[in-house]
Parts: sequence; C-alpha cells; structure tokens
Amino acid sequence: MTTPIVLVTHAAPDDIRIAIVKTFGLEADVRFLPDLSVSERAFSIRNATAVLTYDPFSDLGREEMARLECCGLIQCLTAGIDYLPLSQIPPNIPIAYNAGGFAEPMAEHVVAMTMAGSKRLAVEHRLMQQGEFNQFVPTKRIAGGTCGILGFGATGREVGRLMRGLGMRIEAINRSGRTEEAVDFIGTLEDTDRILTNADVLVITLALTKITEGLIDEDRLSLMKPDAVLVNVARGEIVDEDGLYNHLLAHPGFTACLEAWWIEPVRHGRFETKYPFLDLPNVIASPHNSGMTEGTVLIGVCRGAENVLRFIRGDEPRFVATEDIKMR
Amino acid sequence: MTTPIVLVTHAAPDDIRIAIVKTFGLEADVRFLPDLSVSERAFSIRNATAVLTYDPFSDLGREEMARLECCGLIQCLTAGIDYLPLSQIPPNIPIAYNAGGFAEPMAEHVVAMTMAGSKRLAVEHRLMQQGEFNQFVPTKRIAGGTCGILGFGATGREVGRLMRGLGMRIEAINRSGRTEEAVDFIGTLEDTDRILTNADVLVITLALTKITEGLIDEDRLSLMKPDAVLVNVARGEIVDEDGLYNHLLAHPGFTACLEAWWIEPVRHGRFETKYPFLDLPNVIASPHNSGMTEGTVLIGVCRGAENVLRFIRGDEPRFVATEDIKMR
Repeated sequence: MTTPIVLVTHAAPDDIRIAIVKTFGLEADVRFLPDLSVSERAFSIRNATAVLTYDPFSDLGREEMARLECCGLIQCLTAGIDYLPLSQIPPNIPIAYNAGGFAEPMAEHVVAMTMAGSKRLAVEHRLMQQGEFNQFVPTKRIAGGTCGILGFGATGREVGRLMRGLGMRIEAINRSGRTEEAVDFIGTLEDTDRILTNADVLVITLALTKITEGLIDEDRLSLMKPDAVLVNVARGEIVDEDGLYNHLLAHPGFTACLEAWWIEPVRHGRFETKYPFLDLPNVIASPHNSGMTEGTVLIGVCRGAENVLRFIRGDEPRFVATEDIKMR
Repeated sequence: MTTPIVLVTHAAPDDIRIAIVKTFGLEADVRFLPDLSVSERAFSIRNATAVLTYDPFSDLGREEMARLECCGLIQCLTAGIDYLPLSQIPPNIPIAYNAGGFAEPMAEHVVAMTMAGSKRLAVEHRLMQQGEFNQFVPTKRIAGGTCGILGFGATGREVGRLMRGLGMRIEAINRSGRTEEAVDFIGTLEDTDRILTNADVLVITLALTKITEGLIDEDRLSLMKPDAVLVNVARGEIVDEDGLYNHLLAHPGFTACLEAWWIEPVRHGRFETKYPFLDLPNVIASPHNSGMTEGTVLIGVCRGAENVLRFIRGDEPRFVATEDIKMR
C-alpha cells in the first residue's frame, strides 16, 4: 500500500509546514504545492488523497480541481466556507470546513466585545474627552445575566464556558437541541425567539446557510431587551443590515458588537457598509480578526490537518459541508 | 441596656434605607440625619454608637463630629477614604473604610478594560473608520498569560477569580504574603518587581498609603513587557503620572487602562490630567465608575452596615484605617 498524498495548496511558513508534517507523521506524504515542479505538481494533483487549503479556487483553479482524480476530501482551513463557490467543487469530492478552528481566541474576542459594550468603555472615554466624568451612571452587570448563544458548535461552546465563568446563565441553540455542556437551556432554531427575548447578551456563532441568512431581522430584534448587547462573530448576512441599523437608531441603549460584516475584504475584495455603523456610539467594531492571536493560525491549521488524518485513517471526517451551507 | 443608635448621615433613597434598617433588625436604632429635628439631631449625635457615612466632614462638619461622645466607629461607605482629611477625625474614634464593597462590579470592569486593551478594540475601530481593515494583525491572547495583581484584598481576589476563569496564571501580592485563593504566586510589596516583570496584565487594587504612593514609577514600568496591559482601578497616585505618560509614548504596544485618576471630581472637585492621556491610542479611560452597576450601591451600603453590626455585637470591625493609610 502506498502512502497517501496530502496536498497543501498554499505557501505555508516554516513553523506551519513543520506542524502539518508532524501531524501526519509517517501516515501521509505531505506535499506543498508552491515547492513542486510542473511535473511533480501534475502528479501530486492527480494522486492526492486529500487537499488542505485556504482557497482551492485561487490556488488550484477549476481546471486543476477537475484533475483531483483520487481525492476524497478537500479540507478548508477557514472556519466558514460560505465565500467559496461551493457548487463548482467537483460533485464527487466532499469539502470540509474548519469549524471551531479558532474557537478559543474567538471566544475571548466575544468576551472583550461583550464587556466593552456592557461597561460603556468607548462611550465614556469619548464623553471624558468632551469633559464629562460620569462617575455615577450605572453600567451593565454581567454576573447574573443571561447569555444567549445562537450556534452551539465549538466556538459557541467555548463562549459559553467563558461566559459561565463570568457568572452568566447560558441559553443556547444548536441543530440537535442536545448538549453535554452545562447550560440553563438548550434548544433548536425553533427556540430563537425565546433566546432573543431572554438574552442580556446575544452571541451569534451560527454558520451562514440558506436558513440562517437574515435570521435576525428587525422584528426579531424588537423582541430583545432595550439594553441588550448583540455580538456577531459569524457572518454579517445572518443579521439584516437595514433592520439592525434601524434598531440601533431607535434603541440607543442597545449595543451591537460587529466582528463579521456584510461586505468585507476576504469575501468581497472590499469593506463596505450600507449605513454609517462605525459612527454610531452604540456600535463596537472589529475587522473580523477575532481568530487572530499569536499562535492561533498554527492551531487552526493543525485542527484542519487532524481532520484529514481522521479521513486517511478511514474514519468519518468532521464538518463536511451539507447542502444547506449557503451556496453561491 | 438601651438599643445602640446608628446614625446614617446622608439622604438615602428608600430601598437603601430599608436595607440598612433590615441589616440591623432589632439590634440598633437606625436614624437618618436629614429626617431629624434640631433637638433630635443633637441628641442622636451625642448618643450615637456608630456613624454610617459617605463623608462625615460634609454631612456633620468638624463641630458636630467633636460631639460624637459615645461613638466607637465611623464607618465610611466608600472603598477608599484617602480623600478625607483623616487627621481631623477625633483621635479617639476609629474610622473604617468599605474595602471590597464593590469588588464584583469592579472586577468585571477590570476584565472589560483588560480584554478591550488586549483585543485592540478601540484601536481597530478607529482604524476601520479611516478605511483600514486589519484582519490579520494579531491581538493578545488572554489564556495562558500571567495576570499580576498588586493588592489582593476583596477586589483583587475577585479579579483573580475572573482572570483565572479566563485561563490566566495569577501572581499577587498582599500584606501578609499568604492567601487561601488559588494562585500561582503570592508575595508581599517586596515582590513588586517580580510581578511587574512577569505580568501580561497588571491590575492595581492597592490602597493608597504613604508606601504605595508613586510605587509604579518610570523605572518600575520599564521592567514590564512591551505589550503588557496595566489596569489601575485603585488610586491615580499609585502610578507616577509623568512616568506613565513617558512610558506610553515610548511603548506604543503597551496599554494603560485608567479608571482611577490623579485629579478627579469626588476628591478634587474637577477632572484634570497633566498630559493628554485621553488622546493616546494606547489608553482606555473610564470615569471611576467601575463600582457602579445596577444594585451595587445597595450591596456596598449593606457591607458597610454589616461591619457596623459586627462592631455593635462586640466583634472587631474590619478595615479600620491604620496610620499608613495616606493622611491629608
């Protein structure tokens, strides 16, 4: 039996190359596309058992992807893959996303945004610059409040752990309506309204699918407490842009922490919003960087590689995209 | 035996009055100064066993304080009392401060500032407004880092619990060099340099005393990691204002989260800084409001009242000011 070829499509830095090679050990022949001669490249594509990639369309292109004759898994290294034209993947090759690849730093980022919003840090800093010193205007208490989590995958669960550590009640939804985690409520998408109604803090870590697109519209936002904090670290499109802007204008005590945007560079080549969200005092913005802390790229890559290893060993790979993952 | 009189010197709102009266039950005759007639006032001052107050100098004045003939304890309701002219308190009356009265909301505020600084929220929000979208500039990871805590009283310990929950190592100092809390290191003021050297996050919750004034000067700051986050929720004077400003200019990766200021309204009648700290990108400012969340004034008052109850029952009251508490 020959050693299976795992093809890495991008120019990985040394530490990441080493980590990938180490993950597979003797169980795969790891090849890095940018290293290969023209003939090695053709051979490796034809014979690869799996592909490890950030973007197979830009690194391989459709023509080379069509020559992945032995490939049983395309493993993407990003947590979401809604930005890829998935319908153009050769239909016989399953494509997996790296769900929860950046769970821990993302959960920390959620805590940062939640707390900054609850404690009005940006608002009061600005008012101090204008000479106000509001020592006696109360801020929002975290402990004892309810954190609603829409999407209870690896990232949502890590958010839940940190928020519980800060004394919050946890109410979450996932596909199965079941969890092993310590929660105060677990349900499914059907329980969305309940989660919104109860939440002091609402965290969105859902995948973007045909069902979740536009899930949080103005009607749903109107269910929320007037001083709630909404944190979106998933995809902009899950929240209706018009609805959110109207809601923020009408409810100055409501805070939106936006880490995921509707139009952003990686997916659309530019950053753009329909409304001046960045200038609202009740918005905290970050540039979709919640997964980016020292060392986490490496950890994310290793998680992707481990999923490929699982496949090579004959086990079911995790997070294979299903039909409801939004297709472009 | 007559019921001891406890004199509350300020115009407390109803919920706080009720809570104070309930704390003492039948064990004290609680009197609220603003309710009293001239003769009742004179009688109550002469016969009060204890005084519960935010500021005995403004509510009673020196003349009436001199008539506190039976008073064995002046219990202040603020966590620090360095702003009072303590040397003018009748020398025979112990004065207690409300240490840790606002420990939980203050600890949450520390987490908020720490995380906002570590995740560069204000910095990146501003850059986004200028059109930058730094998706791949790493931010600081919290888990696995070291949180140094200068002052391990009720507030410091609560900070330690929350930070440990976020995965940080805890190194702290207090007066005794001992603690029952789960820490990775506990020491005394003599270990300050070690704490500064190791800290990814440094939290100051010390009381302002003759010893702690100016403790964190430019030399000490130079021991710290260039990307550390300093959080001062104690008193401005513990950090040298010139030294900190110079350090922030020289180390743009270093963040100062300033909740306690050198010149601020309650203590000095105005807010003022010697340098434009509020305009530095590596400063997060809040208006000394860390203790102010819904319901915490009530909790703080009850803790003060409980200390008075302890005294009335013949136990040693806690947090009686000693000579080293800074005197004006």
